[in-house]
Amino acid sequence: MSTQSIELRVRYKETDQMGFVYYSNYLVWFEIARTEYFRKQGLVYKTIEQERGLYLPVVDAYCRYRVPVRYDEVVIVEVGIKEMKASRIVFEYKVKVEGKTVASGTTTHAFINKEGQPVAIPEDIKAIL
Amino acid sequence: MSTQSIELRVRYKETDQMGFVYYSNYLVWFEIARTEYFRKQGLVYKTIEQERGLYLPVVDAYCRYRVPVRYDEVVIVEVGIKEMKASRIVFEYKVKVEGKTVASGTTTHAFINKEGQPVAIPEDIKAIL
Amino acid sequence: MSTQSIELRVRYKETDQMGFVYYSNYLVWFEIARTEYFRKQGLVYKTIEQERGLYLPVVDAYCRYRVPVRYDEVVIVEVGIKEMKASRIVFEYKVKVEGKTVASGTTTHAFINKEGQPVAIPEDIKAIL
Amino acid sequence: MSTQSIELRVRYKETDQMGFVYYSNYLVWFEIARTEYFRKQGLVYKTIEQERGLYLPVVDAYCRYRVPVRYDEVVIVEVGIKEMKASRIVFEYKVKVEGKTVASGTTTHAFINKEGQPVAIPEDIKAIL
Repeated sequence: MSTQSIELRVRYKETDQMGFVYYSNYLVWFEIARTEYFRKQGLVYKTIEQERGLYLPVVDAYCRYRVPVRYDEVVIVEVGIKEMKASRIVFEYKVKVEGKTVASGTTTHAFINKEGQPVAIPEDIKAIL
Repeated sequence: MSTQSIELRVRYKETDQMGFVYYSNYLVWFEIARTEYFRKQGLVYKTIEQERGLYLPVVDAYCRYRVPVRYDEVVIVEVGIKEMKASRIVFEYKVKVEGKTVASGTTTHAFINKEGQPVAIPEDIKAIL
Repeated sequence: MSTQSIELRVRYKETDQMGFVYYSNYLVWFEIARTEYFRKQGLVYKTIEQERGLYLPVVDAYCRYRVPVRYDEVVIVEVGIKEMKASRIVFEYKVKVEGKTVASGTTTHAFINKEGQPVAIPEDIKAIL
Repeated sequence: MSTQSIELRVRYKETDQMGFVYYSNYLVWFEIARTEYFRKQGLVYKTIEQERGLYLPVVDAYCRYRVPVRYDEVVIVEVGIKEMKASRIVFEYKVKVEGKTVASGTTTHAFINKEGQPVAIPEDIKAIL
């Protein structure tokens, strides 16, 4: 299983009055990293939704905040698959600024169809991931 | 044409590192006021979308920022209809803190169907608004 | 240790194209519930920051998503203190729609001063919480 | 006066249940473009705030929405200075997807000091912009 990473620059909108990035934004970054992970493996998440009618809602999310991140800093989010079960995937993330891990976390996702029923991860997707 | 108002308390998430509410959030507040306006007139926007297949995308939005707003302040957003055309509505808003107008603005909306085509405002909705 | 709850209505802004509330927003709701918890105990978080120079950054956050939440639904967030250590507090949350728990989670917070150093929870605050 | 542009990819978080980008997010994009404009001219906005104690709060903002934008689309935001007065700047923006203008807008900014008083745009900044 491979690891991918994305780079982003902290938006003014993402700061709060403490002068740091507000804590919910890390989950947004996790999702961007996840999307790029799929894309790099040849899977466009948009297509999975639109053409196959499959969705990957989040089952749970965890984030550990180590060092605050500031406006305009360049952030690297590394993402990889930690675990793959019958119909679930666990992603893990590391958020880095200048080589230092400032936060880390995981998200668990279920494969469901349009009716919201859990489905087994399709074999071709499993093979790719 | 009547005026409605909503009350909300500034969220920590809505502040930025300048210590004030970030400017895009006012548009979110406008939308909440708009929804309540519909609700008070007996129109649930969710129902308009789901049952009648009508949507009211924003055509344009304007906001004038007069006094910065801070975390935890109680904000009143007053909303009314400024103008109603064949297939468009213009709403106007006043944002107040302790009786003082801290911002104001307008949004223009078009009535469209599921195919994205503009449609005339249905007579019953027109009568209600 | 007591429990408090807040009520909020899902904002259009909080939905995503899957038609449900986007997952990071639950952390925003947790924070609103937390603030109200302090307020109900007679502690205004804004004052703690401004007058005492104390901050409670998030150390970690966890959320378990059970049932998707939709636009315009009325959401109750219950919050209580799960654990209190020397300089840390763990809050726990339940998100309910029509009496049903749709999500739950925890956040851990450290007390720090303006210099970012961890400090023991002041006795008066400890007594109140 | 020059024009700069930024490229960004629509985040899942930025969509709403209509399947398009929620309208307040365009103002966030405007701000990112503005920051890059400053940076490309050799002015880091973070530095202006931190070292010179100058702030550029938004006085007003306008956005015209022409074509809806979808998740994962690549968006170009072009930004330039439309007008410069004694203590105010007007920026103008064009949002493009695949070469087509999907939205446009303006923001007006005042130069203020830490006390919130309006100040004349410093000559060196004026010269650079």
